[in-house]
Amino acid sequence: MRLVTYRPEVCAAARLGAIVDGAVIDLARFGATTGHPLPASMLEFIDLGPQAVLSTSSLLDEHRGKWPVGVAVPVQNVNLLAPIPRPRKNIFGIGLNYVEHVSESSRTLDTSKDLPKEPVIFSKPPTTVIGPGDAIEHNREITQQLDWEVELAVIIGTRAKGVSETDALQYVFGYSVMIDISARDCRRAGQWIYSKGQDTFAPFGPCIVTVDEIPDPQTLNLSLTVNGVMKQSSNTRHMLFNVPALIADISKAITLEPGDIIATGTPEGVGAGRNPQEWLWPGDVVCAQVESIGELRHPVVAV
Amino acid sequence: MRLVTYRPEVCAAARLGAIVDGAVIDLARFGATTGHPLPASMLEFIDLGPQAVLSTSSLLDEHRGKWPVGVAVPVQNVNLLAPIPRPRKNIFGIGLNYVEHVSESSRTLDTSKDLPKEPVIFSKPPTTVIGPGDAIEHNREITQQLDWEVELAVIIGTRAKGVSETDALQYVFGYSVMIDISARDCRRAGQWIYSKGQDTFAPFGPCIVTVDEIPDPQTLNLSLTVNGVMKQSSNTRHMLFNVPALIADISKAITLEPGDIIATGTPEGVGAGRNPQEWLWPGDVVCAQVESIGELRHPVVAV
Repeated sequence: MRLVTYRPEVCAAARLGAIVDGAVIDLARFGATTGHPLPASMLEFIDLGPQAVLSTSSLLDEHRGKWPVGVAVPVQNVNLLAPIPRPRKNIFGIGLNYVEHVSESSRTLDTSKDLPKEPVIFSKPPTTVIGPGDAIEHNREITQQLDWEVELAVIIGTRAKGVSETDALQYVFGYSVMIDISARDCRRAGQWIYSKGQDTFAPFGPCIVTVDEIPDPQTLNLSLTVNGVMKQSSNTRHMLFNVPALIADISKAITLEPGDIIATGTPEGVGAGRNPQEWLWPGDVVCAQVESIGELRHPVVAV
Repeated sequence: MRLVTYRPEVCAAARLGAIVDGAVIDLARFGATTGHPLPASMLEFIDLGPQAVLSTSSLLDEHRGKWPVGVAVPVQNVNLLAPIPRPRKNIFGIGLNYVEHVSESSRTLDTSKDLPKEPVIFSKPPTTVIGPGDAIEHNREITQQLDWEVELAVIIGTRAKGVSETDALQYVFGYSVMIDISARDCRRAGQWIYSKGQDTFAPFGPCIVTVDEIPDPQTLNLSLTVNGVMKQSSNTRHMLFNVPALIADISKAITLEPGDIIATGTPEGVGAGRNPQEWLWPGDVVCAQVESIGELRHPVVAV
């Protein structure tokens, strides 16, 4: 399933939907009209566990093209929000997780040129999250070095503590796209939260594709353009620590919970690594894609 | 007010209470019996804003010693939980925020000997939080360097973005005690979340003292003992960045929200800074105190 959080109208409450044949199916209404109660929010749906994904998916297949009245709306007619508009904790971010990006970072930032031996983890508060099309804020008083990073986001489906790499993908609910925006000049004593944790610094969406549709997360092309010019283009197979390794590593010490988000790191091509360096400025448009998931498109605006 | 989250019995749902004269006053019941509806959880109470603190406080004064039946229970008869058992995002932690601790850290850890020019911020996920008396987990396979840090915790009461130092304390709901437990051997490429973000690494409580009772947060003695032996003893006046400075700094780029927690850093005397170094082991008991707030006492247990 391709799941979205959306508003049917600008001021309406957020709803949970599945995209089928170019329409958004309102899952709570669909469930009510078919006698299978379904929740109205993504987090509640994730909490139901993997069985709910399978049964909802079959139910949608069964009714495909025969939607009850009021259940299906063309996707162009709704406002998409971030799939989880308000995560229950900070997003787990992974730094330096693609070989070429480790190398470009060491040339221009204060990171080591050696490949990390263990995942480098930081966090982004829930207040960083914005939905498709929302503005990335550029505050000239805070930063002159606003940078982009396209990333595959993993959404955890089941509580995980001490899981093995072999079992790790069983704990995944699905995948999405995140742009990990950084103010490179706001790093502090090595800690990245101030640099990466500012309001609007986590464009997220446009949907969550459930794990059954992406059996191998290490085969996805991902790319990012600024004003239409390609800046990053790589594939998730180049991750240093793949998705199972990240889940096994984090869950060794930190319980992962349903709805947790792991932004798995970015490939080469960030602004800080270019010669000369390039930064985002008001008026720019950042566009990020991950294969099989979708595209995010965000303007940068002055605040 | 001294506010607590507690269970009247072991398996009961968590309640919000105020401690008055050695009794816990159940605020929701008290409100219901006096015709002033009050919420049953700390976060809902914080969301009501500063006016609710003032009016609840007067209402308690008015009824002091004349509690309706079923409203007051001796504090010894309840189980205290962390005042906010489940924060809505990661705790903001501040590193290297006391002069002597900067110096001891630079001798034995990988931090700079220079005083930080800006607050050093990291985060601890909500899964780190444990309540008074709960066990701090020691996992020998993950760490051989479990360390202690007593800290003053600030609880935000009102949404804050871009607030000045002068106004900053108006955004505070109250203060509490937090022990920032670290696995020193789990630091990674400078990022501290794995080291400080493990399950049970944020003992928190025993209460939140509302801001009206602590007009100046920079005058509080704070101390920590391990097995009854004093390890840390200082005063919050030695903070490099005081509470208003921290709120002004964070809120410049990151919106602070009601219920957010800032652990304001620890003074000298941590295990890593001692000669020879000392670490926590199963069987140890850690006891932390902040003046005017209270005491936390936690056993370390093997898992």
